[in-house]
Amino acid sequence: MKIQYELIKKDNKTKARLGKIHTNYGTYETPMFMPVGTKACVKSLTKEELKEAGSGIILANTYHLWLRPGEDIIDRCGGLHKFMNFDGPILTDSGGFQVFSLAKNKKKDITEEGVVFKSHIDGKKLLLTPEKSIEIQNKLDSDIAMSFDECPPASASYEYLKNSVERTLRWAKRGKLVHNNENQALFGIVQGGAWEDLRKYSAIETVKMDFDGYSIGGVANDGESKEDMYKAIDYSIDYLPQDKVRYLMGIGDPLDIIEGVIRGVDIFDCVLPTRIARHGQAFTRKGKINFHNAKYKEDLTPIEDTCDCYTCKNYSKAYIRHLITTDEMLGGRLLSIHNIRFLIKLTEELREAIKEDKVLEYKEKFIEEYTKK
Amino acid sequence: MKIQYELIKKDNKTKARLGKIHTNYGTYETPMFMPVGTKACVKSLTKEELKEAGSGIILANTYHLWLRPGEDIIDRCGGLHKFMNFDGPILTDSGGFQVFSLAKNKKKDITEEGVVFKSHIDGKKLLLTPEKSIEIQNKLDSDIAMSFDECPPASASYEYLKNSVERTLRWAKRGKLVHNNENQALFGIVQGGAWEDLRKYSAIETVKMDFDGYSIGGVANDGESKEDMYKAIDYSIDYLPQDKVRYLMGIGDPLDIIEGVIRGVDIFDCVLPTRIARHGQAFTRKGKINFHNAKYKEDLTPIEDTCDCYTCKNYSKAYIRHLITTDEMLGGRLLSIHNIRFLIKLTEELREAIKEDKVLEYKEKFIEEYTKK
Repeated sequence: MKIQYELIKKDNKTKARLGKIHTNYGTYETPMFMPVGTKACVKSLTKEELKEAGSGIILANTYHLWLRPGEDIIDRCGGLHKFMNFDGPILTDSGGFQVFSLAKNKKKDITEEGVVFKSHIDGKKLLLTPEKSIEIQNKLDSDIAMSFDECPPASASYEYLKNSVERTLRWAKRGKLVHNNENQALFGIVQGGAWEDLRKYSAIETVKMDFDGYSIGGVANDGESKEDMYKAIDYSIDYLPQDKVRYLMGIGDPLDIIEGVIRGVDIFDCVLPTRIARHGQAFTRKGKINFHNAKYKEDLTPIEDTCDCYTCKNYSKAYIRHLITTDEMLGGRLLSIHNIRFLIKLTEELREAIKEDKVLEYKEKFIEEYTKK
Repeated sequence: MKIQYELIKKDNKTKARLGKIHTNYGTYETPMFMPVGTKACVKSLTKEELKEAGSGIILANTYHLWLRPGEDIIDRCGGLHKFMNFDGPILTDSGGFQVFSLAKNKKKDITEEGVVFKSHIDGKKLLLTPEKSIEIQNKLDSDIAMSFDECPPASASYEYLKNSVERTLRWAKRGKLVHNNENQALFGIVQGGAWEDLRKYSAIETVKMDFDGYSIGGVANDGESKEDMYKAIDYSIDYLPQDKVRYLMGIGDPLDIIEGVIRGVDIFDCVLPTRIARHGQAFTRKGKINFHNAKYKEDLTPIEDTCDCYTCKNYSKAYIRHLITTDEMLGGRLLSIHNIRFLIKLTEELREAIKEDKVLEYKEKFIEEYTKK
């Protein structure tokens, strides 16, 4: 079975939606934050820790798994779920984002066929095409595959973006043609920068192809402003069908998640919670805090008194600071648990707010506390 | 209360002892392997993972905690147990080993007062004395403190070792005089290289000072052979009292643990299981295996079918190899869990063998399988 989206209720003052995603690995509520397991592993964490944090779908990166260990090895091991021993739903991206971002400032050739670039591991020349991306994802056997799209930088001109949107549509069509996995949903991606006409066109034409879900891309590539991101959503969302899930790619800042939900987005992913954790930072209701700050040296309180995560139930700021400042892996692990739980809890609260038609009140209260100095 | 050792039973063909250590944090059976939590953290693992691996006492390093975060901070946080939120017994070493080994090939001045050396972190000149070591350990509030001893290299001459043994005895006395923590046991350390007369003298004189337990040191400093280690134990052990625990410092090779137990040792510690884990190696009954080996690429079996650890119950060699070869932290973490469990399971089986007077049979069987090609 492919995943199915079920719309449960809409907020009466915004476009926020409460929904359910039915998968072969259980049913999960939306809005949802998906932790990123780049190389078939959410950095430093086990599946039990993700489950305890309330995680539903997780994301894995096609580009990284294509390079190592290779999709054929994962295929012969029985697919990603069996390979990782993960019994929850998995979304794979197309590999496009990594090809464009890891190859940043490096020579890459974008042609109609696909993208020729050099591996970030051994410099080997590689070609990723829409067909190849789908073929890899079919073999990875994720629950949701993404179409291969071009990810132009925020600085791209209108003319460039116009052509790019057309190419992304042609690539989406080519990918859909070769998609061949009856348990795997395939999502289309809307592009078009911060241009109303391009987003509208991209959305309408992508929806015509009848994908199993839709993503709004091009909001976390390179240099996009928050303003551009809101525009990208606003100019796309009304053209997407109500009965399919909407996914805002690469976004994980708490305020952006709230803004995305209000604009009608259902699912989000981002490396932010685990990446800032490894750098010693934690989300809190009062903004991000940095454990390199000496003021936590003897602070015996948890990161947040009100947090229900394993880290907050067990460890003090003083101990976490010690682990972070002495480069102990456990430090990044404990902060990853907290940060992932923080974003998941945020989406849980947004779901409650939608049920009560209080999303705007929730946003106001959250922002007041989060940005207060 | 200070820890108490209780001798339960001796093997009828060897010097192996089955015992119990009663601590303020529960009673644990010996022989026992103690995982090393260098900087108040067994690398990458939580207390729950240690408990699940069957861990009893863990070790923390005075030298590292003295430098970061500093014993006063840990003291003000309520001692090591509260700082780490660890409710099992903790042994701290004296700091001597690190002063001698981390300062290897660097200038250090050993005088009667103590050792002047440079911090491995910022190069700052520091002085560690017997009194200072005990004072730090008192503040750390571990359950077992170790006397500050000199750790000469295996290459040291008889003359050097003779003087060193005398100095270590004087240092032990000075440390004991300032020891001031009624919940903390203090252990003496027997030195003397592989010399029968020096070990005997060191053991007798150390026991005269009436410590709460005794350690055999100088077996894992720099270049000691297995032969030297067996001699060090054999020449010391008969002079140690039956009613006190015996600790072989820094030893964690499975075969060495078996040989140590047979010679009358009760507790062991070593960074080996976590260190080789981070390098992608795992203990198995058939010897160590290395996950960089391509033969595990598609191997869907666990590290060991017979192992009851979390890693073996959940993950395949193929997945672990992928994590190790792509530098995912989870790889080292999963192998650490397995390797620690492996050594603890070994001591559990040795305890069973002592109960049945079958230690020699156990050794023979283990070695046959472990060294078979």
